[in-house]
Amino acid sequence: MTFTLPRRLTAEALGTALLVCTVVGSGIMADMLSDDVAISLLGNTLPTGAILVVLITLFGPISGAHFNPAVTFAFLLRGEITLKVAGYFVIAQIAGGILGSVMAHGMFALDLVQISQTVRTGSAQWFAEIVATFGLVGTILAGLRFKADAIPWLVGLYITAAYWFTASTSFANPAVAIGRAFSDTFAGIRPTDLPGFITAELVGAAIAVALFGWLLKTSEES
Amino acid sequence: MTFTLPRRLTAEALGTALLVCTVVGSGIMADMLSDDVAISLLGNTLPTGAILVVLITLFGPISGAHFNPAVTFAFLLRGEITLKVAGYFVIAQIAGGILGSVMAHGMFALDLVQISQTVRTGSAQWFAEIVATFGLVGTILAGLRFKADAIPWLVGLYITAAYWFTASTSFANPAVAIGRAFSDTFAGIRPTDLPGFITAELVGAAIAVALFGWLLKTSEES
Amino acid sequence: MTFTLPRRLTAEALGTALLVCTVVGSGIMADMLSDDVAISLLGNTLPTGAILVVLITLFGPISGAHFNPAVTFAFLLRGEITLKVAGYFVIAQIAGGILGSVMAHGMFALDLVQISQTVRTGSAQWFAEIVATFGLVGTILAGLRFKADAIPWLVGLYITAAYWFTASTSFANPAVAIGRAFSDTFAGIRPTDLPGFITAELVGAAIAVALFGWLLKTSEES
Amino acid sequence: MTFTLPRRLTAEALGTALLVCTVVGSGIMADMLSDDVAISLLGNTLPTGAILVVLITLFGPISGAHFNPAVTFAFLLRGEITLKVAGYFVIAQIAGGILGSVMAHGMFALDLVQISQTVRTGSAQWFAEIVATFGLVGTILAGLRFKADAIPWLVGLYITAAYWFTASTSFANPAVAIGRAFSDTFAGIRPTDLPGFITAELVGAAIAVALFGWLLKTSEES
Repeated sequence: MTFTLPRRLTAEALGTALLVCTVVGSGIMADMLSDDVAISLLGNTLPTGAILVVLITLFGPISGAHFNPAVTFAFLLRGEITLKVAGYFVIAQIAGGILGSVMAHGMFALDLVQISQTVRTGSAQWFAEIVATFGLVGTILAGLRFKADAIPWLVGLYITAAYWFTASTSFANPAVAIGRAFSDTFAGIRPTDLPGFITAELVGAAIAVALFGWLLKTSEES
Repeated sequence: MTFTLPRRLTAEALGTALLVCTVVGSGIMADMLSDDVAISLLGNTLPTGAILVVLITLFGPISGAHFNPAVTFAFLLRGEITLKVAGYFVIAQIAGGILGSVMAHGMFALDLVQISQTVRTGSAQWFAEIVATFGLVGTILAGLRFKADAIPWLVGLYITAAYWFTASTSFANPAVAIGRAFSDTFAGIRPTDLPGFITAELVGAAIAVALFGWLLKTSEES
Repeated sequence: MTFTLPRRLTAEALGTALLVCTVVGSGIMADMLSDDVAISLLGNTLPTGAILVVLITLFGPISGAHFNPAVTFAFLLRGEITLKVAGYFVIAQIAGGILGSVMAHGMFALDLVQISQTVRTGSAQWFAEIVATFGLVGTILAGLRFKADAIPWLVGLYITAAYWFTASTSFANPAVAIGRAFSDTFAGIRPTDLPGFITAELVGAAIAVALFGWLLKTSEES
Repeated sequence: MTFTLPRRLTAEALGTALLVCTVVGSGIMADMLSDDVAISLLGNTLPTGAILVVLITLFGPISGAHFNPAVTFAFLLRGEITLKVAGYFVIAQIAGGILGSVMAHGMFALDLVQISQTVRTGSAQWFAEIVATFGLVGTILAGLRFKADAIPWLVGLYITAAYWFTASTSFANPAVAIGRAFSDTFAGIRPTDLPGFITAELVGAAIAVALFGWLLKTSEES
């Protein structure tokens, strides 16, 4: 069962759009309804984890359901996607990420295009993004190896946890980060803070590729 | 394994009744117990997502577990249900939806029949309902294609997310909307706002049928 | 794979004990930590739903994991358990229910045996218990028919929802009700209110046996 | 599919590190964001339950995913692991546990190494740890017997419940307890209180091995 490139790119763009729409939209809703930031974060976490299970199940058979340039980068490092297709994927993901913010704003009757003012920077935040993306890519690589049909659940649950145990609330995704830069709401990130986050995310992905590349070799293979 | 039409209609009516009973009842409970609206929405979201997994598993083999005229409409557009049966289904769903509100009121010792005063209107809300129903129908169509036995989970998780990322809290269902119009509680909607919501829901369903009809074609089929 | 009667009764008693220990213990914890009753109910709901999935998976293959005289009564009505074994089961369940309250009190350094003062009575509450137990037994009967290995999840999710949509927070279980009568904490129920609750629960179970007995017959069988 | 001992020990250390990092990190985040301790406990519970499902799925095929000296002790009592390998496992788990606290502190820009001041002692707390670990080891033993591929879910859900129904919030794990002693935050435990907790955990594990060793024997085996 294979799908044409336009369909695969549509799946990447639409999936990333719905993911960012969920992150940004639930952030707006939760922030609007509560004064307790922990409750708002719960109202942001649960929808994000839930929609990831759904989106990866729906679009996985079409495009692999990366929705994330760091994941595409990991597959590129492993030689499992060509540079050309990876490039198309990343463009589709970023376009989808921005569209997702715009959609969320439209539903909440806010300005469609915004620029975030939320400061997210510093070495602790960057370390958090390295850990977050390392864990995400490790989850995907070990999950694909041992229990591929559980990947949607594993990623949804991993992100549910990572929202809380990483100080950055685990962006772990450059396309989502770019999409969130276009929203001056709960989930936003200042555009000038993007390079630090994106670099950290790619570093985390590369470490995961290296460490899990070794760890997942059986006695017979190594 | 086939079931007679009376059993299929009973499944649609009973399933929709229990769904609306959960939406309305948990809304009453949550609203009564908390001053923080985000907590109330959590107490409304979790039961709704949970009961959807249960109801679709139980009634799916009998009637298909639509519980939703927008879903029945989508299958009608795709030619997978006759107009006559679709008509019966919609009547059963609406009757069930109203019964669900009445049951919830009975359990909480409220007036059994009420008319909601809650205003839910405007283009942002309608856009939210288009997105919400587009996503729901897309989830069902792609889910049926790739992982049919996960449909109960996919729908439950999708609605869990959609409660939060859509500004309307995702009714996404004309029969549920009509049932909720008969409850002047947390989950209610003013009857005069129904036409806008229902129209938006059918539009969202039609867009999903068109877009996913294209997206889900493999290279061999297209 | 069959188990001796002492093992089956131990499974029923231990399972019911751990269930009531979770209901009562999480109620104490949640009530102690929050002033917002909706948050306390969340902190009571999530553990109960989660432990049900676990306990039914663990003890189901041994005893069927009833943990509930209303469920045993439903199987008795259907002729799927003898009166004698059903009697033993109910005794084990009630003993386990009381033990569960005592265990919870021991962990929280409270008086081991208490008598609840919490009033839970009236026709609305009884109607809620009828609905709650009807739904629980219907979930089990239709679940066994269509997707038996999902029963632990279906029951856990059903109870998660029913905590919120029924005004009584869904006891739906005479043994659990009796166990909770021995705890003057968040989850308690006054002993004099037990007969009303237990009667309602058995009525709900009987209605479910009748309605689902009809509904689940295929065209070939009816 | 077998893995070399260095890989198995890496899996135990990395898995325990990510588990403790989640427990400590989400505790810091939740405590920082809310004044309501029940909400903080929710924000601590959900990530812990979620990450357990992920980590046990990912590392189970490599090392068995104990992450817990009490679990390794239970397998030792049952003769399913050698004393030598068990010793290595425990060292890896404790090292991972401490690393997890350090990682969490790094992400939240706190002192990397801390000593907890949080008092957790007394017979009620010890009884709670006995119950908590008894339940955890029973879950694993009965789960392995009846539904081995559900173990990640069963453990994640069990701990989700046990956070709330045990007065100690269910450490149930000596390596995690030691790791948490190195964090003076929400999840911490005073080092002088470790011996009581660890003793209780090993007692609970031993009781589970004895009781479930009897309970799980079928009529043919006993």
